[in-house]
Parts: sequence; structure tokens; C-alpha cells
Amino acid sequence: MTETILSVDTLDVRFPTSRHRDGSDAMNPFPDYSAAYVVLRTTEGAEGHGLIFTVGRGTEIEVAAVRSLAEMVVGQPVAELVADPGALARRLIGDSQIRWLGPEKGVVHMAAGGLVNAVWDLAARRAGKPLWKLLADLTPEQIVAQIDFRYLRDALTEVEALELLRAASINRDAREQLLRREGYPAYTTTPGWLGYDDEKLARLCKEAVEDGYELIKLKVGGSLADDVRRMAIAREAVGPKTRIAVDANQIWGVPDAIGWMRELREFDPYWIEEPTSPDDVLGHAAVRKALAPIKVATGEHVHNAVMFKQLLQAGAVDVVQIDACRVGGVNENLAILLLAAKFGVPVCPHAGGVGLCELVQHLAMFDFVAVSGTTENRAIEYVDHLHEHFVHPVRVSGGRYLAPTAPGMSAQIVAESLTAYSFPEGPEWAAE
Amino acid sequence: MTETILSVDTLDVRFPTSRHRDGSDAMNPFPDYSAAYVVLRTTEGAEGHGLIFTVGRGTEIEVAAVRSLAEMVVGQPVAELVADPGALARRLIGDSQIRWLGPEKGVVHMAAGGLVNAVWDLAARRAGKPLWKLLADLTPEQIVAQIDFRYLRDALTEVEALELLRAASINRDAREQLLRREGYPAYTTTPGWLGYDDEKLARLCKEAVEDGYELIKLKVGGSLADDVRRMAIAREAVGPKTRIAVDANQIWGVPDAIGWMRELREFDPYWIEEPTSPDDVLGHAAVRKALAPIKVATGEHVHNAVMFKQLLQAGAVDVVQIDACRVGGVNENLAILLLAAKFGVPVCPHAGGVGLCELVQHLAMFDFVAVSGTTENRAIEYVDHLHEHFVHPVRVSGGRYLAPTAPGMSAQIVAESLTAYSFPEGPEWAAE
Repeated sequence: MTETILSVDTLDVRFPTSRHRDGSDAMNPFPDYSAAYVVLRTTEGAEGHGLIFTVGRGTEIEVAAVRSLAEMVVGQPVAELVADPGALARRLIGDSQIRWLGPEKGVVHMAAGGLVNAVWDLAARRAGKPLWKLLADLTPEQIVAQIDFRYLRDALTEVEALELLRAASINRDAREQLLRREGYPAYTTTPGWLGYDDEKLARLCKEAVEDGYELIKLKVGGSLADDVRRMAIAREAVGPKTRIAVDANQIWGVPDAIGWMRELREFDPYWIEEPTSPDDVLGHAAVRKALAPIKVATGEHVHNAVMFKQLLQAGAVDVVQIDACRVGGVNENLAILLLAAKFGVPVCPHAGGVGLCELVQHLAMFDFVAVSGTTENRAIEYVDHLHEHFVHPVRVSGGRYLAPTAPGMSAQIVAESLTAYSFPEGPEWAAE
Repeated sequence: MTETILSVDTLDVRFPTSRHRDGSDAMNPFPDYSAAYVVLRTTEGAEGHGLIFTVGRGTEIEVAAVRSLAEMVVGQPVAELVADPGALARRLIGDSQIRWLGPEKGVVHMAAGGLVNAVWDLAARRAGKPLWKLLADLTPEQIVAQIDFRYLRDALTEVEALELLRAASINRDAREQLLRREGYPAYTTTPGWLGYDDEKLARLCKEAVEDGYELIKLKVGGSLADDVRRMAIAREAVGPKTRIAVDANQIWGVPDAIGWMRELREFDPYWIEEPTSPDDVLGHAAVRKALAPIKVATGEHVHNAVMFKQLLQAGAVDVVQIDACRVGGVNENLAILLLAAKFGVPVCPHAGGVGLCELVQHLAMFDFVAVSGTTENRAIEYVDHLHEHFVHPVRVSGGRYLAPTAPGMSAQIVAESLTAYSFPEGPEWAAE
């Protein structure tokens, strides 16, 4: 009997993070970090896990979308799926009826990405490798074959992608050894949530420096007076050398972003993240031009590779912040990594939330080994929340992510947590 | 007792249009025109109807999204809702948790738009006016207050919007009389579906000219040889004067779009619609530059006002194709109409599907009376399908939409059709 996908289980899992205002920012004052969680089970008992990060209400919509798309996965032969997840990605993203609800954006696109990521998890488990290593062992031709170039060729052709990947083949083994030995740089957002008081901010800033971080991030955009005071506290706490990025989470229009950030200039912010709507490519370009040398970063809400392509074409960003759960899965993130490499723009992945660190580390590490070949001016976001719920949580030490060694994409949540935090029937919620 | 919203009913309604390949194009070979249909009921028995157009599979996801957002509508006082639908729009679109699933795009944004449109329908019914007239009777200040300018001010400020609207107040009454007398220009896509054979194409093209249409539209992008043959047939059938627009429904990348359209130049296409991804603002600008004087049109998949803003800022479009169901409802379309007017670009609304003609005619007619003040180079798309299911179907005669006179937004589907086509339990589907 051919091994096929027997079932796709989809769960609504929510963590009540809003109770302590962990994760609070200008646009998300009270997030409950949550996930539409996906488990593929094969007829031979193998599993692939995936998740789509959300922030609470509406997770049920994402769950509904995954369940609808799952019909295209159940019954599929496993060997073909894991040999070519890109074929599944094209079917899920290209479905001629469901496509109307995107296209390639929002709820349905994230659902496709969650299923595609679960297939990659299954593929890496079967190969006995962590995902970053599975990807790094693919040939340039195999990687290029996993990408849909339809809308990208005016910026990156298949031939150019192959050339980039072949050039990066040099010293690939040495970089892999370095990665296994020293890990990948992290930066921390733990100190900077908008809901934390000044004392907690100062204490966490100091701890971040002691822990080895060279870059920390603060949320801004609530009140200018507060931001000036908090930036002064943070700069005082970390000293002149540690970089401080700030993140407005889309609170501003273009003129507001420029005006507000000029008031924070004296504290030497390293980048301004999400200064305005993530859709506003031209707006980001205008902000970047007005605020240089302050860098502009965005990506956690940038919904597909076409948008990243334009951010790069327009010279709108200094930092590309890929997210493991926003776009159509690993395949689309491969395209985005290659686009960033083509334009010479560093990738500093968005993480935090629940599971985002676990998933995205694989993509950044693959990028180091096989695409950009460098960690210079690059770091993966790190927030020390909710890792205890994962079977293979990230390991961060001395301000660096250690390379995962367990097979898969590190997406699996422990069974007890799935039960406890399932919404609305789990014990953590039923008592509310 | 204050009148409040008692309930929000949401239905999955699908019409099996794929059986005859009505609506077939390069990206949608077999669409089943469908809707997530919304009915607001008040404690005093009043109703507001809305719908979100879809093309079949996945409608259940849209229904799930409307049901989730409906919690923010049930129990609300009706007088406040209808006096200021913009306040509801901001709450629905800005919800700090659900926002993560967009933001302002895809399934959740369309759901918000469906609910907002249903409130406008309720408002217009209460006022005893068709929606276009309700909007045309608002003062410039009232219209501006209905728009969220957060991300628009680098292109259009409140002050500029007021100036535009005040300038358009001159001769408003005369234009309203003209509209009531002569209607608003239509163009027809009926002849041009990709699934129709050559004989049917030629026959429908001739009928369109006889019916008074000055612009028809053909689907392209399946095969170049077919497109050349079909364009020749259509041009022969309609003669040199009738405009022929073509629509690729996003099938191409930027270089493909330019190359393919050069092969169709000899047939004098009026515009190329959706030449590539609707997200690709810079791509549309490149296509437009390469193909002038062929015009570039897009909009039915342009997911919010920020994207339209950029299409206009980048000089990427000659024709703005608003859609009644893609963005966050009437309020966001008011913003888009004002942006188009500011940049002097004509609006030719996307319609067809099911209910799109019924809804969007109100916006185009309002634009004529109170914003752009002209119908020059403007026409509302018309397709003669599925109107029989509406309580107040569009009336098209001599190539023109006649102004609706019934109170509301014309969104109401007749009860028998809702029953017959409800999915999957309705008799039209249960037999499948």
C-alpha cells in the first residue's frame, strides 16, 4: 500500500498572554498569542506539524480555512508530497475558486502556508534532519524548482537564482560547521513591550546586554512623550554600543512616521520597524529617504513575495523581516530569501509570538549556509515567551540561537499544552 | 426601547455557473458565482442586506469570518450605526486581534466590508432612498468624516478631500436629474468569456453593439494563438469604433504581459485589465509604460485604499476598477473614489459575478453626482447573469444602467433563490 495522508487535524490553541500584557504594542494592546495548529498523519503513523500564528480572536477563521484547504491534502501520496512540497503549494495557492479570497494574501494564504510547512516538517522528519539542514542539502536546481517565479521574473529569474545559489555553494560546509558550533545571532524584544513600566524596561534592557544581545527592540507609537522617556531609559541602560531598534507596528501614516521618528533621532535608533501600513511600498520608500541613516524594516505583515519584491525594487527597506507563518510557507520564503540576496538586503526574521522563533530559525540558518552566506547585520528576533510548550524549543545562549538538531521544523507543541490551551474548551479558558 | 441589531444571519449561497462556463477566464476556468450573504435584523423588524461575492469553494471560510465579526454588530443601537457606519468600519477593520489575519486584506477585510455594506443598506432603507442618493445628499463634511485617512494623507488629506467635494457641489442637482433621466454608461463582458466558442463570440459581439454598448471586454491569456484569432473575430464583429478591452485576470508576469500584449496591438485593445498580480504596483507601472497608448486597468482584486493610493502615485493605472465587495465596504470605496478624483483617473467599476452590478452602480452614480462630476471615459461593467435572483435587479437599457429608485443598496436576494441555491443543502446542490 502506498503511504498517503490519512488525516489533517486542526486545533484552535490560545495562550492568555494579554493577562500580563506580554506582547503589547501600539496596534496590539492586548494580544493573546494563539495558533491554528495543524497535524498531518500518514497511513503509516508518521506526522507533520505546522502552525499559523495568530493573536487571539479570529483564530477560528484561520482554523476554518485550514480545514477547507486540507481536503486537497488528505489522500495524497506522502512520497510525492515530501519530494516536491512546491507542487502542493501551487495547488493550494492557485486553486481557481479559493484564490478569489486572496489572492495570495490573508487568511487563505496563511492557511496554505501552514499546510505547506507541515509537509516540510514531515519531509524533514522522514529525512532525519532538522529543516535547515534538509534545505541546505538540496541542490541549487532543487531549490529553484520549489519556487513559483510567475510574478518575480522582472526582479529575479530562475537563471539568476541558480547563479546566486551556485555562488553560495563555496564554503557551504565550513559555514555549516560554524553554525553548528556558534549558532546564529539573536536580538531581543523582551524588554520593550509597551505595557511594561519604566523600572521593568530598564531592568530588562540591562539583562539583555548581560545576556549577550547586541541589538534590542522597543515598541513605540503610543505617545511621543512616553517614547522619548522610554528611549532615554533604554539608551541609558544599554550604553552607546548596543543597537536599539524601534517598532511602531503600523500605527502611523507616512508624514506622522517621519515627524515622530525625528524626535527620537537623538537616541540613535537602529531601525524603525513597520512605520506605516505594510502594504505601503512607496510610503516605506518615502520614510526611508526622509529618515536615513535610520534604517527601515518591515515584513511580518508583508503578505507575499510580490510585495517583498517591490519593497526591494523601490529601495524601501534596509532590513527584510521574513515571517514563517505569514506567507505561503517555506517555498515562498525561499523566494523571499533569494530576492533579498539578489538586492543585497539583510534578512532579520520576525519571531516571538508562539512558535515563530522555533520555525523561522530554520530559514535564517539555511540562508546563512546556502544563500546569503553571512550573518553580518543579521539577527533573528527572540522573545522568551511560551517556548516551554514546544517539544523542541529553541535554544538561545549568549545572544545566539543554537542550531536545532532534532528532525523537522520544530513546530510540535506538547500534547498537554494543546489540551490545556485549546479554545474555548480547554481548562485555561473554560474557567473564564 | 432603543432599536438595536437583533441578529446577523449569514448564508452560503452558490450558483452553479461553471456548468456552462459563464464567467470563465484564464485564472478562473470554472467559477461557481457565489456569495457569503448577510442579513441584519433589528429589534423593530427592519433589515439590512449585504453580500460578499466569491467564486465557489471557500465561501464557507468567508461565512465563518462574517460570523466572527458579527459579534461586534449584534446588540448595537441602530440609530448610531446608520448615522455613522464609518465608526463600525473602524471597529471591525481595526480590531486589535482579528487585524493580524489581514491587516485590511483578504477574508477578514471582505467580511468587514460585507457587514458595513449591510449597515449602509439598512441606512438607505430607513432614509427611503437608494444608496447613491443617500450618499449624494451627504455634505462634504459628512462624507469626509466617513473615511479613515490614517494611511492616505501623503496622497490625500481631509482638507483636499473637502475641497474636491465642495467643488463638485456645483451643478450637483443638474447631474442628479441627468442621471435619473439618462442613466450611467455600461460596458459588457458578456461576449468575451474564454470558454465560449468563436461563433458564440461573434454573435454576442454583434448583439452588444446592437444593444448600444460602446465598450466590450474579452478575456485573454489562455493561448496567444486563440487570443489573436478571437480578437480578430471580435474586431471584425464590432467594427473599428467600438472599444474592445481585454482582461488577463493576472495570468502573466510583467515581461509576459508586455510581450503578449504587443501581439494584440494590431486589434487596438482599449485597456489591458489585470495584466499581472494585483499586488504589483510597480509591475503595473512598468506594463503601462511599455504598452502606452494601451491603457492599464485593475482593481477587482486590489485589496484596500493603500494599494489604490500607490497605483495612482506610481502612475500605474489609467482606469481604477473599484469593486463593491473587495474592500472594507462603502466607506473605503468613498476613499478610493476621492483618490481617483484627486489624481484625475477615471473609475470604471468591476461588476458581474452575482450582485456586483447591483451594489457597485450606487457608488459610480454617487461619484458622478458628487465627486468626479463626469461620466466621460467611464462605464460600469455589465454581465447579464443572475440578476433574476435579486429583489431589485439592475435595469440596463441602451447600454446604460438606469438609476435605481428602490431604497437601499439593491443587495437583497429573493427568498426562493436563497433556499434553492444554499450550499450544500439547497436543492440545486443536494442532487449533485
